[in-house]
Amino acid sequence: MSYIELKNITKTFGNTVALDNLSLELEQNKIYGLLGRNGAGKTTLLNLITNKLFPTEGEILIDGDSVIENDRPLSKVYFMTEKNFYPDTMTIKSAFKWGREFYPDFDEDYAVRLSEKFSLKIEKKIKSLSTGYKSIFKIVMALSCNTPVILLDEPVLGLDANHRDLFYKELLQSYSEKPRTIIISTHLIEEAADIIEDVIVIKNGRIIMKDSVENVLSQGCCVSGSAAAVDKFTAGKNILGYDALGGLKTAYLLEEIETQAVPEGLEVSKLDLQKLFIYMTNS
Amino acid sequence: MSYIELKNITKTFGNTVALDNLSLELEQNKIYGLLGRNGAGKTTLLNLITNKLFPTEGEILIDGDSVIENDRPLSKVYFMTEKNFYPDTMTIKSAFKWGREFYPDFDEDYAVRLSEKFSLKIEKKIKSLSTGYKSIFKIVMALSCNTPVILLDEPVLGLDANHRDLFYKELLQSYSEKPRTIIISTHLIEEAADIIEDVIVIKNGRIIMKDSVENVLSQGCCVSGSAAAVDKFTAGKNILGYDALGGLKTAYLLEEIETQAVPEGLEVSKLDLQKLFIYMTNS
Repeated sequence: MSYIELKNITKTFGNTVALDNLSLELEQNKIYGLLGRNGAGKTTLLNLITNKLFPTEGEILIDGDSVIENDRPLSKVYFMTEKNFYPDTMTIKSAFKWGREFYPDFDEDYAVRLSEKFSLKIEKKIKSLSTGYKSIFKIVMALSCNTPVILLDEPVLGLDANHRDLFYKELLQSYSEKPRTIIISTHLIEEAADIIEDVIVIKNGRIIMKDSVENVLSQGCCVSGSAAAVDKFTAGKNILGYDALGGLKTAYLLEEIETQAVPEGLEVSKLDLQKLFIYMTNS
Repeated sequence: MSYIELKNITKTFGNTVALDNLSLELEQNKIYGLLGRNGAGKTTLLNLITNKLFPTEGEILIDGDSVIENDRPLSKVYFMTEKNFYPDTMTIKSAFKWGREFYPDFDEDYAVRLSEKFSLKIEKKIKSLSTGYKSIFKIVMALSCNTPVILLDEPVLGLDANHRDLFYKELLQSYSEKPRTIIISTHLIEEAADIIEDVIVIKNGRIIMKDSVENVLSQGCCVSGSAAAVDKFTAGKNILGYDALGGLKTAYLLEEIETQAVPEGLEVSKLDLQKLFIYMTNS
């Protein structure tokens, strides 16, 4: 049964169609990756789910309740936005105190412990934080609020590789202890591929793919070798795109290849989600 | 012969030592990756090379000339900063015109062509651009100015995967046509690994590694399998760190393993630069 349901959602801004008759059903307790190019409609979709924007047409339900002007479904969702909506002069510590007012299950002890792991100093004012630490503060809020749904919009913006690694680990740890429905919108697709179960790809306001990461990746492969050999072998196949370097070439295919069918000198390897995404969404 | 030379550079801010007696020599016409955690001193180093900051101690030379209060070496460097220093009301088109005033070899035609590839509309005002498109505008300026040295500080911040892919390709294309000394500071280490030749890792204001990517990666490997088997095989070896998932474990080693020495059931694979970096720089 679906926990979040978008039914024929259209959203226009003036003459621009941001979302175009989009329908989507999301299950409870699953981690979704929401992928799309800049401007594809990802943030609009998250804003609609949380009633920050109203659809031009269509209906959105959370656990069976319409989200429009309705506190009950919205109390079930924490939305980590790219922008910061906390008062600038507020300290992180007092934001945690306020967290409990809005989210009854907010776990302040956990928030403090998680801050320590990220070396986030909770006496600091939110406005004094760097881009990376603003993201970390919002990550801590999101993982501590214990709502059944968490929406994360570009959670790792400005984070160094170590902090991104820590975030992925803490997210999985938190999820395994308290399963929730999590939607992550991110441009760092290859890193996210390890933590998301299902992938949703938006292009020009429509969903062009919704499937498990496992399924998606098992349907494609890369073939590398000399340009001539690659061209000969892949002729007539379902080719997503190519990379070339000197006389070498890699073809990205959207079909399975049996290993014994591959001529000597060619190498077949797994497709990665980011490459697949790039070729699917290039204009 | 080194083209850029930092000799015993120390930079303090109040009681904080940002760079600590750091020496570094960079060759002409090579692509360097400058890696370090947030706050490690990367941006300070780039600011010192371009005379935006003065060293507390030490000396910096470009092509044999000291950079301090000296226009000649500085005219050889374009610095793509994270912050935007162009007037807000300026259009991209007029920024290109001004580019020629400051950089005599600025290639306006190329800038226009590159803008088209990124769908950057050059009639727009710089202030109206999104985070991603601000980065793209600065990338176009950097690749068009044709200075012997380009410094890129977080060039791909906010870019979607397709635009990052396009940036890496255009950078390599531009470099192969007109070799220059390029320093890229980035948190997206795994992606940058494909385009950088040498890697420089900074930790706490000191350089802890400077080597070719090829050398660095050939010195390490990953060993995966059941936790017990991995522990047994890697005991006493130079272990950087572990990842574990259920009963499975991956050990990251900083030594080479001969394939025939590996017991059945264990898999040895290449180390990636980002994992290596994470384990080297975790505190």
